[in-house]
Amino acid sequence: MAKVGVILSGCGVYDGSEIHEAVITLLALDRNGAEAICMAPNIEQMHVVNHLTGEPAEGESRNVLVESARIARGNIRDIATVKADELDALILPGGFGAAKNLCDFAIKGPECEVNPEVARLIREIVAAKKPLAAVCIAPALVARVLGEDKLTHQLTIGNDADTAAAVKKMGASHIDCPCTSFVIDRDNKIVSTPAYMLAGGIAEAAEGIEKTVKALLELI
Amino acid sequence: MAKVGVILSGCGVYDGSEIHEAVITLLALDRNGAEAICMAPNIEQMHVVNHLTGEPAEGESRNVLVESARIARGNIRDIATVKADELDALILPGGFGAAKNLCDFAIKGPECEVNPEVARLIREIVAAKKPLAAVCIAPALVARVLGEDKLTHQLTIGNDADTAAAVKKMGASHIDCPCTSFVIDRDNKIVSTPAYMLAGGIAEAAEGIEKTVKALLELI
Repeated sequence: MAKVGVILSGCGVYDGSEIHEAVITLLALDRNGAEAICMAPNIEQMHVVNHLTGEPAEGESRNVLVESARIARGNIRDIATVKADELDALILPGGFGAAKNLCDFAIKGPECEVNPEVARLIREIVAAKKPLAAVCIAPALVARVLGEDKLTHQLTIGNDADTAAAVKKMGASHIDCPCTSFVIDRDNKIVSTPAYMLAGGIAEAAEGIEKTVKALLELI
Repeated sequence: MAKVGVILSGCGVYDGSEIHEAVITLLALDRNGAEAICMAPNIEQMHVVNHLTGEPAEGESRNVLVESARIARGNIRDIATVKADELDALILPGGFGAAKNLCDFAIKGPECEVNPEVARLIREIVAAKKPLAAVCIAPALVARVLGEDKLTHQLTIGNDADTAAAVKKMGASHIDCPCTSFVIDRDNKIVSTPAYMLAGGIAEAAEGIEKTVKALLELI
């Protein structure tokens, strides 16, 4: 049974993992006979957003690992304890948490810094020639890590011109892609799909994520 | 396009909606061409549980509608504003929130009280002969509302003897059922499935929920 690391970034599209993307990822892994190893950094969220109003919740703080545990039903590990040699593949669902908690792309754009444990695990996976998938905005984080290592690679964040430009600036080749499909970089074993960067509804996002998970598992 | 009300109860299995069940419900509705109308009561949660430790988080409070908005990506309404005549059907995902926030079954068992707006909407749906589905522990809440009205009805919460006995005490006929299947009460148009009352993994829970959503839509 393939063991696939799933890096979560909180619980909710505006300040954490996009919940639909994360759950669809877990479902696709289970349906394809893979075991999900959920993990998240044990750090405070950048902020808490009230998802009813869309406004930041003043004075509130939440922990990324503790909130991610909601999606994982408590079965989750601190990413600092996870090494690539335990995993056959790695996948990052999206949501603003990927750009606010796993790195600070949402604030700093192409000059962003990536959480050191997240960057370490991505580098270990790539060095071990194991496959990696990134969903929605998470490819921006992957572009930053691999771009700093001067590794030529291809990915997609959909077709948003500004985000695509930022991704290129960090060192990736960006390929436009609809949310029902995915981009595969066979040389580096990287799969990516736009999901809610473009999806108008959950079924559209699911179509691309399910294809991405299948492609990821086939690269093992 | 059928409009299906989805009653959420927070965001996380131990103090709110079971996230996997809620997302799988939304995905199944979209894939079957139905529109989900997400809603939740605008009340404080019974408590907040740290999903990493499983322990109650002392001194924290969260609002059921605000937290449910995380699952609904902000597209959610206060249940007090929703009438049955806007809906073609209604579904309640599970999670402890259904037994802690939508009613107090988790504390009081068969003597539980149901949130008045949740009870009102269930009664309106049943009176209008529109179909109703309940997942996981949520059938206990349905049993309490319909039992108080002396309405004979059938449902399942899986095969847990104590919970089944409580459901019977409230006035329902309980049918044992595996998590990959569902129980249908054609006279009252009520569909139910055990989901994580029994499921060992997300794919098992999804199989029963997907069948339940299809059955619900066929009853419209």
